[in-house]
Amino acid sequence: MVRSAARLLRRQGYAATGWRQVVADSATPWGSQAHHFPGGKEQLASEALALAGARYEQLLRSALADRHPAEAVLAWADLAAAALEASGWADGCPVATVALETAHTSPALAEVCDVALTSWRVALTEAITARGVDDQSGARLATLVLASIEGALLLARAGRSPEPLQIVGQELSIVLRARVP
Amino acid sequence: MVRSAARLLRRQGYAATGWRQVVADSATPWGSQAHHFPGGKEQLASEALALAGARYEQLLRSALADRHPAEAVLAWADLAAAALEASGWADGCPVATVALETAHTSPALAEVCDVALTSWRVALTEAITARGVDDQSGARLATLVLASIEGALLLARAGRSPEPLQIVGQELSIVLRARVP
Repeated sequence: MVRSAARLLRRQGYAATGWRQVVADSATPWGSQAHHFPGGKEQLASEALALAGARYEQLLRSALADRHPAEAVLAWADLAAAALEASGWADGCPVATVALETAHTSPALAEVCDVALTSWRVALTEAITARGVDDQSGARLATLVLASIEGALLLARAGRSPEPLQIVGQELSIVLRARVP
Repeated sequence: MVRSAARLLRRQGYAATGWRQVVADSATPWGSQAHHFPGGKEQLASEALALAGARYEQLLRSALADRHPAEAVLAWADLAAAALEASGWADGCPVATVALETAHTSPALAEVCDVALTSWRVALTEAITARGVDDQSGARLATLVLASIEGALLLARAGRSPEPLQIVGQELSIVLRARVP
């Protein structure tokens, strides 16, 4: 049920994802949901986003291991573009839609989205500082990288084209090559 | 009614914005809405997003007029950060939330969001190529700038902090100074 919720939240956001749709999508027997999620839809969404955020952090850390961040970010952008296109422009960032929808309406969901985004930013910062860049510059470059990829996912979904992600991956790769030893 | 819809769509997205809420928010008398918007909520949202996109394009073109793109983008990021903070982290990009929510569910809304995003990208490209950068490099830099600002708006909303926008504005300004005469 948490996995179904994560998939639906990624594709269509929080408001459009109904409890009944998650139950149907996950083939959960009626009656067991209220027991597992006494906090209802908001609790289920929190757990789903936390899970999706942790999984994406693992993927990102694997992509960043054992190669220059410039190469890793290029590969990440190309992979994200391919996944997005293969899903019919549905599978973008696992937390972005809910983060934008709930930023000022649900402190609990805003918090879980922020935890995910922060964990990815930290993974990027660590990969950059591991190569000798100072902490402050590393954090700034990581912010630029994460923001650009998030925005490129938005542009790619809206335009139904992998191009924004490919361009941003290549441009970030030029910046990282120039500034990370 | 279109202005109310634009404000609500920017803050909370499409699925969470009800027809009744727009009517109440805009103080429109019952009965006149169906006459003006026979296509219902989707038509109202399309018109609201088109209006918001055109207004934002004007703002962006004013910001880009008569100064170096590096300076304009820095000012844009700082202004966006201030507006976001002043609105209690509600007023981010006028089309991003709906673009993510409806990318694969409403071709009409996806299209109107894409038109807005493309118009901003074109405004940025023109400002960059006007300074002697070739068309292809100009379009690539414009894509990087728009993606980074969109992503920074997301990070700033999620983290309730102006910092991602400030950092991205400064980092983009360094890139533009180096690559635009």
